[in-house]
Amino acid sequence: MTFALADWINPRLQQVEQALMQWIDPDAPAALGQAMRYAVLDGGKRLRPLLVMAAAQAVGGDSAGSGQAALRAACAIELIHAYSLVHDDMPCMDNDVLRRGKPTVHVQFGQAQALLVGDALQALAFELITPQGDDVPPPVQAALAGLLARAAGYQGMAGGQAVDLASVGLSLTEAQLRQMHRLKTGALLLCSVQMGAVCAGQPTPLVMQALSRFGEALGLAFQVVDDILDVISDSATLGKTAGKDEAADKPTYVALMGLAPAQTLAKQLHNQALAALNDSGLPLAQTLPLRALADMVIHRNN
Amino acid sequence: MTFALADWINPRLQQVEQALMQWIDPDAPAALGQAMRYAVLDGGKRLRPLLVMAAAQAVGGDSAGSGQAALRAACAIELIHAYSLVHDDMPCMDNDVLRRGKPTVHVQFGQAQALLVGDALQALAFELITPQGDDVPPPVQAALAGLLARAAGYQGMAGGQAVDLASVGLSLTEAQLRQMHRLKTGALLLCSVQMGAVCAGQPTPLVMQALSRFGEALGLAFQVVDDILDVISDSATLGKTAGKDEAADKPTYVALMGLAPAQTLAKQLHNQALAALNDSGLPLAQTLPLRALADMVIHRNN
Repeated sequence: MTFALADWINPRLQQVEQALMQWIDPDAPAALGQAMRYAVLDGGKRLRPLLVMAAAQAVGGDSAGSGQAALRAACAIELIHAYSLVHDDMPCMDNDVLRRGKPTVHVQFGQAQALLVGDALQALAFELITPQGDDVPPPVQAALAGLLARAAGYQGMAGGQAVDLASVGLSLTEAQLRQMHRLKTGALLLCSVQMGAVCAGQPTPLVMQALSRFGEALGLAFQVVDDILDVISDSATLGKTAGKDEAADKPTYVALMGLAPAQTLAKQLHNQALAALNDSGLPLAQTLPLRALADMVIHRNN
Repeated sequence: MTFALADWINPRLQQVEQALMQWIDPDAPAALGQAMRYAVLDGGKRLRPLLVMAAAQAVGGDSAGSGQAALRAACAIELIHAYSLVHDDMPCMDNDVLRRGKPTVHVQFGQAQALLVGDALQALAFELITPQGDDVPPPVQAALAGLLARAAGYQGMAGGQAVDLASVGLSLTEAQLRQMHRLKTGALLLCSVQMGAVCAGQPTPLVMQALSRFGEALGLAFQVVDDILDVISDSATLGKTAGKDEAADKPTYVALMGLAPAQTLAKQLHNQALAALNDSGLPLAQTLPLRALADMVIHRNN
């Protein structure tokens, strides 16, 4: 079955961009709104929002991807991702000055404002998925907020950042490296798939389990590819500083196992992700966007 | 009607402390759990949690205050408060080294860890109010998460911090100062009362409106008293650096209107808060904890 990913992605990207423009209030007090918009708009591949929408479609949700719950969940997870980048770039963390080809938020607006931008984006993520009125049924709101909170917090992204921080200069085993990335980047990618699934009804435990296996494999593959790109790309292609992992003496898959074995691992994880979809029992046609996004993650060059 | 506030507070404080000990996992990765516990446990007056429980009781919720929803909401709002202190104390914000008589989190654990502690505490707040299982009905979870997100974010606390940041060295009008505090500290105190009310069922619009007026007046009174204490207390009594508002050239009620008029304003707001409870139509006995907490806010010395 052929599938034109660009034709699937483009209208959904437009939807997400428009929704983010609408939902990040430019008039938030004391220029906070402008700084929040700077941190989020016109940047990034929007992989997490696309995964939410693709997962909603996989379980039989609105195939136009226009369901309010999925759109809100898609934007919410992007806000969490964006806030983590703002805080991660700060001088006390990675001290990075370039992000998506632009000065980072603290360079542009100062450190105090960058701190508040991240804090406010995290709160806004939870605001988006708990709308007043009838847009999203309250039980779906509760499920989305529960998934997002766990993926963003100490059991997920923030926990992974703490492990990352504590690992600089240490030599990790592959199991330790995997655990760090499972938390730091994997949790949010897995959460994207899970949020999409609960937006579109009540998936069976079998389906939820298969989609979670897909999300876990994809999340790890994403990081392995990230480590590979940090070595083989230049800053212009990446839109951020290349080679910074090595410069910061950070543990990576490439440093641990070498370039070729890391590339093999990425392919294996890709296959695991696709196998999980085969095991899900979901109709092939419904899972085509998820499959195509997995291909994109593996073959991206930035 | 006499009411022994200490007898009401003590068992509830114990409940909150035990719940926070249980819910902030000491084994969170890379010492993040220990740092989160340092930021939250054994400190603070727990005013916001007590307001949640008192509001739940006011609308007729479990008079023992042991309802799972109210306990979870109480701890959640304390985590938001605690995270805001951690970030606010950082060098790029207030650069404070003493909090509740202890070294601040960034002094004790480093700036990067302090940043992550705040981020993880915000996520954990939303995790606590969206438990899996039957503890809290999903529509209550959704209502709590919606209230908390709005109070914490750009329309609330984070927005107020941004206004505060932009106001240093400026001479504000009383209206501007009031707006700043309505966001910065008022939103979370108001939210405490509103969360308590939705924990205990579905309050009528009249009751919700009256409790919101109570929460707004109390929130503003709290800040006016804070400004007064910053001038008339010493650091040992406050448990934080006294006189720092004036030193930082921050606008305060005392600086704007003088000490005696600020004290009069605090009394007026106290009366407004009590009047709102009178207008609520709620039985007097049920509102006694809220009334006693309002008295405590006005007459505290730290």
